[in-house]
Amino acid sequence: MRRAIEYQRSPCPVASTLDLVGDKWSLLVVRDLIHGKSTYGELVDSPEGIPTNILADRLKRLEAAGLVVKSAYQERPVRFAYALSEKGIALGDVLQALVRWGKKNIPGTRTLTEIRPAAARGGSGNRPGRIRAKAARAR
Amino acid sequence: MRRAIEYQRSPCPVASTLDLVGDKWSLLVVRDLIHGKSTYGELVDSPEGIPTNILADRLKRLEAAGLVVKSAYQERPVRFAYALSEKGIALGDVLQALVRWGKKNIPGTRTLTEIRPAAARGGSGNRPGRIRAKAARAR
Repeated sequence: MRRAIEYQRSPCPVASTLDLVGDKWSLLVVRDLIHGKSTYGELVDSPEGIPTNILADRLKRLEAAGLVVKSAYQERPVRFAYALSEKGIALGDVLQALVRWGKKNIPGTRTLTEIRPAAARGGSGNRPGRIRAKAARAR
Repeated sequence: MRRAIEYQRSPCPVASTLDLVGDKWSLLVVRDLIHGKSTYGELVDSPEGIPTNILADRLKRLEAAGLVVKSAYQERPVRFAYALSEKGIALGDVLQALVRWGKKNIPGTRTLTEIRPAAARGGSGNRPGRIRAKAARAR
């Protein structure tokens, strides 16, 4: 029965998971949704300055994979909120492993919740990169 | 002092780790090295059929990041063996998280060690995809 399933590359769970989230951005979107962000505007406003076309594409792909659920929270103009499904929330385990590895092996890395406002660029309480993200959106 | 460190996107350990291995192939190379593969020929011969130019690029990047150590095991012609550094081996934790998530959330996925020869294509004892990988190399 299992042979009827078509895998993109192989039935290996690592390969199959990377087929869904194996890129530089998808797991950052999952990270932000886990941290309570829900709107497009909030998601685009992250330190990494995700390009808007990539954010739109990743949200679409995560939704198609059943990791993200999209729902309208406003009509005229319609606006959407994004939330993780149960499967999406379960990726928190992968994120935690990445956090542990990064903090141990890449000097100076620290989770966003560990970055105090005083350390942010400009010291205005903005998260680092917020300015860059805003500039990117203004283009 | 920490502000002197230049991060590719942000000091977030998830983002910084994905800057190194956030793609569809790098962690599969790490998976294979953890499973005891060491030569280019062994690495190219995986079920996913990694294109040779991508394998060469990923090995170079993993070596530059200090995750893989390359050493000559033969002269004339010189041939290299690849092994994980301590940092590279530590990515096993991330791989295990991906395995757990994949097995739970993508029906039918199973680790390569769980695939018995009888289940392989052609039933010849080859791993699935080996034929495809060979064909890719022959191009």
